[in-house]
Amino acid sequence: MARQQSLICKGCWQQMHVPIPLRGALSVPFRVVGLRPSRMNPNTCTFCELMFKRVMKATKITIDATILFADVRAYTSLSQSLSATAMGDLLDIFYDECAGAIWEYDGLLNKTIGDAVMAVFNFPIRQENHARQALLAARDIQRRCAARKAEFAELTGDAGVEVGVGIGIHCGELSFGEFGRTHRDLTAIGTVVNTASRAQSVAASGEILVTAAVCQRVGDDLRDRIAKPYELKGFDRPLELYLG
Amino acid sequence: MARQQSLICKGCWQQMHVPIPLRGALSVPFRVVGLRPSRMNPNTCTFCELMFKRVMKATKITIDATILFADVRAYTSLSQSLSATAMGDLLDIFYDECAGAIWEYDGLLNKTIGDAVMAVFNFPIRQENHARQALLAARDIQRRCAARKAEFAELTGDAGVEVGVGIGIHCGELSFGEFGRTHRDLTAIGTVVNTASRAQSVAASGEILVTAAVCQRVGDDLRDRIAKPYELKGFDRPLELYLG
Repeated sequence: MARQQSLICKGCWQQMHVPIPLRGALSVPFRVVGLRPSRMNPNTCTFCELMFKRVMKATKITIDATILFADVRAYTSLSQSLSATAMGDLLDIFYDECAGAIWEYDGLLNKTIGDAVMAVFNFPIRQENHARQALLAARDIQRRCAARKAEFAELTGDAGVEVGVGIGIHCGELSFGEFGRTHRDLTAIGTVVNTASRAQSVAASGEILVTAAVCQRVGDDLRDRIAKPYELKGFDRPLELYLG
Repeated sequence: MARQQSLICKGCWQQMHVPIPLRGALSVPFRVVGLRPSRMNPNTCTFCELMFKRVMKATKITIDATILFADVRAYTSLSQSLSATAMGDLLDIFYDECAGAIWEYDGLLNKTIGDAVMAVFNFPIRQENHARQALLAARDIQRRCAARKAEFAELTGDAGVEVGVGIGIHCGELSFGEFGRTHRDLTAIGTVVNTASRAQSVAASGEILVTAAVCQRVGDDLRDRIAKPYELKGFDRPLELYLG
């Protein structure tokens, strides 16, 4: 299922038309000076990741993008009953399956924090249909994690809790770039990010919840087009979410 | 107020007794091969950050450490009324002040996610009194952010919401190392991390809430030693927290 890895950095190629070799003999001199596949997406390079300001001529840009949040349901209660080793093994599997799915659809695995993963679609690799790519990645995450159910069950054996994943997706204009001057961090911020995170927080195990903005762009690809209203922390009005 | 920056990597020195120059002419050849001050703490190097496995001879280790979470109160509602530029400027200030305070007390600024910052005390720079260092860093964050109140007010002008910071601290044994095999991420996990995060979630603007474990270690340094019980999501029993 794993797609062939790109030989040159897709980000540098798209943004600057510069071919940065990522793999093979040609990549050796680049690796010596620190240019190697990014941890956020192995088909882009550390230059894309670290030199945002130099490439984009700005510390932050406003882009249209899709944000995906995935997290392990019941993680807090699991973390109270499982050993640190079991939790570590569980996260290893979860992060790896998320990474595999996100990279398969050219997304950027921007953050992992505890049991949550945040991905950005449409930067540095541009995608016209980024909302759809994010939805396909989300389904792939659910599929991949379901396929490792037995391993999860082995790890959580005594806890009597089933490991499941909840996913939230939203798209729209957001601010992407380096935040902080002394501790620079390449990430996305804005309402779109928060809304995606909140949507994820109400997704049940195995569910993908997407906003009306995502629904508009992916249309018939959704499981159904019937919205359900959710009361979310920090939001004045209930948010309409669709099953993805 | 800013302390002088270390000339060699404190982490490599403590863990391996190897002096890695971080600054000055001696650091040039090291920079060429990618060894430079870490973004997580400029007094440690990228080797500490990226070569954990090689140095520690394990992908994860169990250590006694302190975790600090700080976050901007009312961020979600602010993000709905402020422009992306204003939110970006607000986070720049917040991240920088957190970084300054955390590094001042030798902590590792491990993560920033949206409006939250997560720091680890006692790795890679070892500190006997890491709980106390974290508490002092937390007070410094509050002091520094309070000092920039006017700038925050200017950014949030029309929103009518005052920017404040809530902080939670917990200490104990946790798992530290690289999680995920394809997307490797250096971080800490375990109940200690979750509890610190939950403590932060109930801290009011300007407050620092610490657990009984922290109270035991810092003792008389606390503002008072009267605990208040808090009902936290995912916890069976209320958690006793002290004002730090």
